[in-house]
Amino acid sequence: MSVLKPFLSDNAAAVHPRVWEAMRRADEPDAPYDGDALSQALDARFTALFGRECAALWVATGTAANCLALGTMVQPHGAVVCHREAHIEVDEGGAPGFFLHGAKLMLAEGEGAKLTPEGIAALVDPIRNDVHQVQPHAIAITQASEYGRSYRPAELAALADFARARRLGLHMDGARFANAAAFLGGSPEDAARAASGPVDSLAFGFIKNGGLGAEAVVLFDPEAAAQVRYRRKRAGHLQCKGRYLAAQILALLEDGLWLANAAHANAAAREVAAGCADRLLHPVEANELFVRLTVPERAALRAQDFAFYDWGAESARFVTAWNTRLEDAVALGKAIAAL
Amino acid sequence: MSVLKPFLSDNAAAVHPRVWEAMRRADEPDAPYDGDALSQALDARFTALFGRECAALWVATGTAANCLALGTMVQPHGAVVCHREAHIEVDEGGAPGFFLHGAKLMLAEGEGAKLTPEGIAALVDPIRNDVHQVQPHAIAITQASEYGRSYRPAELAALADFARARRLGLHMDGARFANAAAFLGGSPEDAARAASGPVDSLAFGFIKNGGLGAEAVVLFDPEAAAQVRYRRKRAGHLQCKGRYLAAQILALLEDGLWLANAAHANAAAREVAAGCADRLLHPVEANELFVRLTVPERAALRAQDFAFYDWGAESARFVTAWNTRLEDAVALGKAIAAL
Amino acid sequence: MSVLKPFLSDNAAAVHPRVWEAMRRADEPDAPYDGDALSQALDARFTALFGRECAALWVATGTAANCLALGTMVQPHGAVVCHREAHIEVDEGGAPGFFLHGAKLMLAEGEGAKLTPEGIAALVDPIRNDVHQVQPHAIAITQASEYGRSYRPAELAALADFARARRLGLHMDGARFANAAAFLGGSPEDAARAASGPVDSLAFGFIKNGGLGAEAVVLFDPEAAAQVRYRRKRAGHLQCKGRYLAAQILALLEDGLWLANAAHANAAAREVAAGCADRLLHPVEANELFVRLTVPERAALRAQDFAFYDWGAESARFVTAWNTRLEDAVALGKAIAAL
Amino acid sequence: MSVLKPFLSDNAAAVHPRVWEAMRRADEPDAPYDGDALSQALDARFTALFGRECAALWVATGTAANCLALGTMVQPHGAVVCHREAHIEVDEGGAPGFFLHGAKLMLAEGEGAKLTPEGIAALVDPIRNDVHQVQPHAIAITQASEYGRSYRPAELAALADFARARRLGLHMDGARFANAAAFLGGSPEDAARAASGPVDSLAFGFIKNGGLGAEAVVLFDPEAAAQVRYRRKRAGHLQCKGRYLAAQILALLEDGLWLANAAHANAAAREVAAGCADRLLHPVEANELFVRLTVPERAALRAQDFAFYDWGAESARFVTAWNTRLEDAVALGKAIAAL
Repeated sequence: MSVLKPFLSDNAAAVHPRVWEAMRRADEPDAPYDGDALSQALDARFTALFGRECAALWVATGTAANCLALGTMVQPHGAVVCHREAHIEVDEGGAPGFFLHGAKLMLAEGEGAKLTPEGIAALVDPIRNDVHQVQPHAIAITQASEYGRSYRPAELAALADFARARRLGLHMDGARFANAAAFLGGSPEDAARAASGPVDSLAFGFIKNGGLGAEAVVLFDPEAAAQVRYRRKRAGHLQCKGRYLAAQILALLEDGLWLANAAHANAAAREVAAGCADRLLHPVEANELFVRLTVPERAALRAQDFAFYDWGAESARFVTAWNTRLEDAVALGKAIAAL
Repeated sequence: MSVLKPFLSDNAAAVHPRVWEAMRRADEPDAPYDGDALSQALDARFTALFGRECAALWVATGTAANCLALGTMVQPHGAVVCHREAHIEVDEGGAPGFFLHGAKLMLAEGEGAKLTPEGIAALVDPIRNDVHQVQPHAIAITQASEYGRSYRPAELAALADFARARRLGLHMDGARFANAAAFLGGSPEDAARAASGPVDSLAFGFIKNGGLGAEAVVLFDPEAAAQVRYRRKRAGHLQCKGRYLAAQILALLEDGLWLANAAHANAAAREVAAGCADRLLHPVEANELFVRLTVPERAALRAQDFAFYDWGAESARFVTAWNTRLEDAVALGKAIAAL
Repeated sequence: MSVLKPFLSDNAAAVHPRVWEAMRRADEPDAPYDGDALSQALDARFTALFGRECAALWVATGTAANCLALGTMVQPHGAVVCHREAHIEVDEGGAPGFFLHGAKLMLAEGEGAKLTPEGIAALVDPIRNDVHQVQPHAIAITQASEYGRSYRPAELAALADFARARRLGLHMDGARFANAAAFLGGSPEDAARAASGPVDSLAFGFIKNGGLGAEAVVLFDPEAAAQVRYRRKRAGHLQCKGRYLAAQILALLEDGLWLANAAHANAAAREVAAGCADRLLHPVEANELFVRLTVPERAALRAQDFAFYDWGAESARFVTAWNTRLEDAVALGKAIAAL
Repeated sequence: MSVLKPFLSDNAAAVHPRVWEAMRRADEPDAPYDGDALSQALDARFTALFGRECAALWVATGTAANCLALGTMVQPHGAVVCHREAHIEVDEGGAPGFFLHGAKLMLAEGEGAKLTPEGIAALVDPIRNDVHQVQPHAIAITQASEYGRSYRPAELAALADFARARRLGLHMDGARFANAAAFLGGSPEDAARAASGPVDSLAFGFIKNGGLGAEAVVLFDPEAAAQVRYRRKRAGHLQCKGRYLAAQILALLEDGLWLANAAHANAAAREVAAGCADRLLHPVEANELFVRLTVPERAALRAQDFAFYDWGAESARFVTAWNTRLEDAVALGKAIAAL
C-alpha cells in the first residue's frame, strides 16, 4: 500500500523526539500549575531570546494565546484591527468576542494578508471619534501571514510607529512565527528579534513546529503580564501539570531547535516551489504554498498520494512541517511541474 | 539526602506509563482537532461505560470542563447553585463568571461539602420569582466533594429528582470522579454509573489520576453537546493535536486503568487514615484526608520529610495519588499515630 | 433673527402634546416598574394591533430594544446577519457585542440598505458548517431602512421563509417603523401588519415619532418575552417609574396617532422630494431624503437657514419629523429646485 | 371611598411640578443625545456642588448608574466588595455580572447594611493573593444604606483610606443620596460634600426624589468618565432626547430642590418614628422605617388604609417620599402607637 505524502497542514504533525524526551523528564515531581522550575524559567529564557524584558506564559492553543494577549490592550467597548483574512476573524470560532467581552474585529485589507499603516489608516480614519462608533484599541498582525508571507523588520517598525501614534496596542499572532524567523535568517536571537520587531505582545507558536500542546504568550509589558496570569486561570487555561507544557517550549528553544525545525519546513516548501514557481499565488516566505491548480490537476496529484487542501475553486494549499521528508517535497514539486 | 514523601496533591503527580505509551502511539499522522480516530471514538466509549447515550469531549482542564458543561444549562442572567466551598466558587479564578457571561454562583450549605435537596431548597426557596432577583438555572455538585466525601446513588437520585422538579440542570464536577467511583466499588461500568447517577453532565477527571492534560466533558444531552463543540473552540480549548488528549483518556479507560489507579490512591489514603482515625475531620471516602494537627505536630511531620498543605490553623490536608507508595502512606499513618 | 428650518433628524424632535398629557396623567400613584396598569396593558394593545399574540415591553432606547430582542435568538457563539450599513453595526457603539456576549455581526450587502434572501445567502453560504467558523443565528433588518426604504410585505415574507429554512431568527429594527407603515398605508392595523410581516421580534420606535423616551420591544414568541423581562432588568433598563413610558406608547397608539404622525413626516418628505426628484440617491419611501448636492449648493441652502447633515462628500441627508412644518418642507424643495 | 396613604416606596412617587416644567421647556429644539445645552451643563453644575472636578452623565436607572461607574474600577476578572444586603447583590437582577463581564460580588457584613474597614478586611484578608482566587478591585457602599442608615463623613474618610491602602476603587450607590445628605444637614454644597466624602464615583439618585427617569453618574476621575461615555452608549443608555433627562436633574439641583425634597421625606419619616420609637429595628437616618409589627398589627394598619410592605415575618417597611403628606405620616405614627 502506498504511503501518504502529507501536505495538509503542520498543525497535526508528530511531536519532535526531543520534545518527548523533555516531557518525560518532567515526570519528576514539582509544584503544580506554573510554580514548577520549568515554568518559572520561561520569563528569563524569552527575555534572553528577545533581548528585552518580557513575561512568557504557556497556554494550550494559539487561539488562547492571541486572545489573552489582546485582552490586555482592548477594552470590551473597543476593537482590534486585523486583516480580513486573519485567523482570529475567520477560523477561531468567535474567540475574540468571548475573551474580549464583545469587542469588535475591524477588517483591514492588505496584500498577502499583511497589514500596512496605509491599509489600517484607510479603515480607521473614517471612524468618527464619537461614542456611537466603536474605536480601535489594538492592531493584530500575523507572522507569517495567512498566505505565508513574512513581515520584514522595516515593515514591523512602520506598523509599530503607526500604532504608537494612534495609541493602539500591537499584537502579533505568531502561529508560524518560527517560519517567518527562519525566513528572515540569522542566529535564533537575531531571527527572533527581526521577526517580532517592536510588538507589544506575541503569541509564539510551538505546536506547529514540533510541540504537542504548548504555545507561549509573550508580553513585553509587565502590567499586561500580571493581568494575563489572572485571565489565563479564568479561561480554564492554567493546567495543573504545567511543567509538561513548559518542558515542550524549553526543549524547542534549546540550541535553536525551534529555528532549525522551521528552517527545515521552509526548505521543504522551497523544494516544492521550485517545481511550480509559475503557478504560485503568493511568494513563498515560510512553509505554505498557494498553487494554481485545476480540478483535474489536483485529482492527478492526489492519485499520486499527495494529501493537501483545496484553496477555493482554482487552487490548492500545501503546507510543509518540521518533519516533512525532503524527498516528498521534491517529488511534489516535480509532480506539479509535470502536470 | 532524604527523599520527599509527597502528600501535597494529586494534581501534579507524574503521568502513568500506559498514558505515555498511548500518547507516543498517537504520533502517527491523523486529522487535526478532534477529527482523528481517537477523538472520534470517545462518544461511543463513554456511552458504553455509562450505559446511556452521551457525547464526550476532551479539554485541558477541569475548570474548562465544568464551565463548558454549565454553559449549556445556565443563561447569562441565571445562576448555578453550588456548595459554599465548591472549587468553582473558591479556586477557579472566577471562571464561571467568564464562561457563563456573568451568571452568578449561589452558595448552599451542606455537610462535608456535599449538597442535599434540603440545603438547596433553603437557599433557593426564599428567592422571589421576579426579575429583580437572579434565578437558579442549574446545580453543580462535586464527586468526590472538596472534603473527599462521595455521593451515594440514592443521594444522587434525590438531587436529580429535586433538580427536575425545579427545572434545574444538574452538573457534576468530577475532578476526582474516579476516586468516588472506586469508593463505591464494582466493575468500571458499575462504579461509573453509581458515581454519576442521573446527572445531565459530568466533568470526568483524568489528570489527577494518571493523565497529563486531558479531562472529558461528558454530556448526556445531545443538544448540549452540539453547543459545547462550538464553545470549546470559542474558548480556545480545541487543541489541534487533539489525538494526544484522546489517547490519554482512552488509555486510562482501557481495562479499567482509571478505576485501578483511583483504587490505589484510595487504599493509600486508608493506610494513612488507619493511623489517625481519631483526628479525622471528615470520613475518608476517596483520596483526601483532613487531619487535626497542631502547628508543632505538623512541623514534626515535615521534619520527617512528609510534604502536605496546612488546612486552616488547626489541621492539615493529605492527598494520595495513583503513584503514592503504600509504604509512604503506612509511614505517614504511623508517624501521625506516634505524635 | 431668522428661525432655523430643521431637517437634521427626527431623533431630537419635540414631544407630542398628547404624549405630554398622557404622561402627566400618569402622575397618579401606581405600582413601580412594570406592575402599573399602563404597562400591563401593553401586551394586549400590541396583540390587537398586530393580530397575533405578542408581548410588548418598554425600554428607553432603540439600541436596547434591538439588542434585547436579538439576545433571544442568538447564542453568544453565534452571529446576527445585518446590512453593512445597519445601525446596529455602524452607530450603536458596539451594543450588540455587549448584549449578545460577544456574538458577531455578519455584514450582508443589499440595495438601499435592504436585505434580500439572495444577499444573505451570498454571505452565509460560504460559511463552513464547522466549529472554527461562527454560524449565523438570526437576521436583523431595518424598517424603514437606513436609506429610508420600506420593505414590502412580499419581501418580508420571502425573508421569513428564508430565515425559517435556515433556522434563523428574524428581527426587525423599527426605529422608523411608523414611517414604513405609513408608506405602505391602510388602517393602523393594516399598516402595522403589512410593515412587520411575519418577523419574530420588532423594535417598534416611538421616540422619533413624537415620544420622549420609550420604544417597545415586541416579541411574538412567549419564551423570548420571558427571557427579555429578566434581561431588561439585568441591563438596567427596567425603570421604576415605568408607567410614564407606557403612557407615551399608549398615547401614540391611541386613535392611530403614531401612524398620523408618521404620515405627516412622510408627506413633508414628499414635499421636499418634489423639488429634487432628479437629485435623489434613493426613492423616498419614508421620511428621509438623500440628495446629491455640491458643497456650494449645501452652503447656499444653509445660508437660507436650512439645517441638515452632510452625507459624504457629494450629498446631504434631510429628515422630516412629526412636527416638521409643511411650509418649511415646501420651501426646502423649492430652494433645492432653484439651485 | 377611602384614599390610600402610601408608604410602599418612594420609587414610584409622582414627578415634581418643577421637574415637569423643566421638561416642557426642553421641548425647544436642541442637539440630540448629550450634545444639548442642558446635558453639557451637568459637569460644571456637579463640580460646583461637590467642590471638586467631576463629570456627570445622566442615565435612566440607578442600576445602570451603579454598574457603569463600577465598570471603571473593576476588571472582568476582579470583584466588588459590597454589603450582603446591598441592592446590587439582592435586587438588580444580576446587572453587575452583565456590566462587569462576569466580575464577582463579594459580600461583607456590617451593621445597618453599612460597611466598615473592619468588616471588609474580615472578608478580603483571607483571600490568597494568587490567580486561583478572585481579587477585589473596588468597594461599593450605599448612602443611605438599605436600612436607611447614613454614613458620617468620618466613616467615609475611613473607608476611603482603607480603599486607597488596598488600591481599591470606592463607589457610592446614592439611590437615596439626597436623604442621607439631608440627614447630615447644611447647605446643598455642605450636605452633598459631607454625604459623598472622598468617593471615586457616585450614582446620584433623583428618581426617588421627584424625578421621572434620570439619575446622574458622577465620576471624579476624568479617565473613568471618558470610558463611561462609551459604555453608556454601548449599554443602550444614551437616549437621543437626553435634554429631557438633563432637565430633570438641573431642575432638582436648582435652589436646592433635591435637598428640600429629601428633607421633607426625612421629616415625614421622623413623624412616623415618633409614634414607634420602641419598635424600630434601625435608627431612622433617612426616609425609611423598619418597624416591628405582628401580622395582626399590620392587618390593623392596612385596614386603616396604610399601604406598606412586609419586611420578613415580624416587621414592616415604611418609606416616605418628597410628596408624602405630613398628616399621613403623623397619622401613621399615631396609628402604630395606638396598636
